Amino acid sequence: VSVGATKAGEFDIIARYFAPLARGFEGAAGLTNDVASFVSAPGCEIVVTVDTLVEGVHFFPEDPPRQIGQKLLRVNLSDLAASGAEPRYYFLAMSLPARIDEDWIAGFTAGLADDQDEFGVRLGGGDTTSTPGPVSLTLTAIGEVPVGATIGRCGAVPDEDIWVSGTVGDAALALPLISAGADMQDYPHILSRYRLPQPRVGLGPALRNLASASIDVSDGLLADLHHICKGSEVGAAIHKVDIPLSDEAKGLLARDSSRWELILGGGDDYEILFTAPTIMRARLDTVSRDSGISLTRIGKTTKGPEIMVSDETGTLRDATISGWRHF
Amino acid sequence: VSVGATKAGEFDIIARYFAPLARGFEGAAGLTNDVASFVSAPGCEIVVTVDTLVEGVHFFPEDPPRQIGQKLLRVNLSDLAASGAEPRYYFLAMSLPARIDEDWIAGFTAGLADDQDEFGVRLGGGDTTSTPGPVSLTLTAIGEVPVGATIGRCGAVPDEDIWVSGTVGDAALALPLISAGADMQDYPHILSRYRLPQPRVGLGPALRNLASASIDVSDGLLADLHHICKGSEVGAAIHKVDIPLSDEAKGLLARDSSRWELILGGGDDYEILFTAPTIMRARLDTVSRDSGISLTRIGKTTKGPEIMVSDETGTLRDATISGWRHF
Repeated sequence: VSVGATKAGEFDIIARYFAPLARGFEGAAGLTNDVASFVSAPGCEIVVTVDTLVEGVHFFPEDPPRQIGQKLLRVNLSDLAASGAEPRYYFLAMSLPARIDEDWIAGFTAGLADDQDEFGVRLGGGDTTSTPGPVSLTLTAIGEVPVGATIGRCGAVPDEDIWVSGTVGDAALALPLISAGADMQDYPHILSRYRLPQPRVGLGPALRNLASASIDVSDGLLADLHHICKGSEVGAAIHKVDIPLSDEAKGLLARDSSRWELILGGGDDYEILFTAPTIMRARLDTVSRDSGISLTRIGKTTKGPEIMVSDETGTLRDATISGWRHF
Repeated sequence: VSVGATKAGEFDIIARYFAPLARGFEGAAGLTNDVASFVSAPGCEIVVTVDTLVEGVHFFPEDPPRQIGQKLLRVNLSDLAASGAEPRYYFLAMSLPARIDEDWIAGFTAGLADDQDEFGVRLGGGDTTSTPGPVSLTLTAIGEVPVGATIGRCGAVPDEDIWVSGTVGDAALALPLISAGADMQDYPHILSRYRLPQPRVGLGPALRNLASASIDVSDGLLADLHHICKGSEVGAAIHKVDIPLSDEAKGLLARDSSRWELILGGGDDYEILFTAPTIMRARLDTVSRDSGISLTRIGKTTKGPEIMVSDETGTLRDATISGWRHF
């Protein structure tokens, strides 16, 4: 752990709030080193992912720091889950403006502490610097997976099933309601989905050797499907009626069908979108039962390259996107 | 590689400037995934370090982007070197304000490209986000070391030699000269030392099983010695006359001996400061000859806990620091 030269008492802060997060990770040496070390489990490969959250871009200044800590960890764990990896360690780089006080740090680390117990990860180290700008938080998450079993985006072939876990669109539906001043007590489910990602850590490893390609839904259902299609050089045909929706989302759609744009285009669901050969259906039903996480087939891969979406009448329209900007 | 939703053409930028940096790292999949994976070499442990550079804190807005890229990579490689690790992979998180243009990215990645060839590392992935604040760059570097051979800060015992590589104080001497408008053509050596760290990547692995504790000199000679002493629960006695100085540093000290404060307290030398049993002297002399990097004994560890510095007359004074703030 390196320490910026402009914040007083930083060593005390590390000892009090961050060192406890490294307990149980011997190679982190209580965060007294600039490095941490660990031995990979035999027969496993290491999986690494990095995500940054910036104040004013990914969260609001007034958001509870506890929730910010949890979100930071969870968006990374979601990437590991989609790759089939089990999370092990994380490293944390924080650029903090002078106004950040010990209360903020206490809340932020309390969120991390709760989540790292829930998801089985430990802090290995990091860096704290001052910044004249907004809070900027970068987390590197490290997981493990049996050698060769990491699920990427490039393994889909035509005529496979396209699956998605849980429900999609909830987080994207919440934001305009909040902005419009709606009483969010009427929408407890989508509000909680918006506030805090639920990474599918329990599901991802179960998809090894079943899913041919996988991604977490963070950019949006169509955008992330596009990533798989582009990586795998396939197309897709999905059916709106098959897309799994929460009851609250169904209610909102019934009142305003233009909200489909949010379902298809909005992000931050952190569900796993994946492809699998049709022969895997029975095994995936078992995975769903065992994990308690619903898995829904929403369409098929095609020779492509188009991504087609069928509407309520069954009419297919081309929803191919040439880039994220269209959503 | 996740991509922020506010910068146009980001996928093109990744493909053009960043994907080439991942060539040769198969598990990075051309930066098309959110994760990268690799198999650890048999008998090795993984070493991880993270450092952040913030515009306006660690570099100037007008600094050449090529140099910023190199500095970012090198400060992390220096941490790996001090731990005895050989660098393998790195991951990059960038928060970029809207004014950052393609020329900046081109320069920044050109610096990374040069250095990753020189130091034998490859880009594995990362994250790009927009920010309303300054450029903020976080690099996670991953290295390997034989199991159990990682050099930490906690292994020193009393009556060992204290060694330092190269020369110290150069970078710290440069800054006030630049600020005072001195003609830096008279100080080419210290200027280059200030501009660009030279991580001791070739030296670090050679110190395995010789050094009992090790750190790179980034906070300052005394501050980093303090880190070793605190981690190892020892003290130290070092001798000013034995501290290795460049000819330019010697000249500057001859004119103003108060500059010793900069030599002892200034940081950013990126030399390796380490302890070793006296029985290792002959082997360390061989390491120095083989690597072409000078290694100098500057004192001994003691039962402590004081850090004593002897001045030119041999008089010892207590230079124990209770925290970085004193320097």
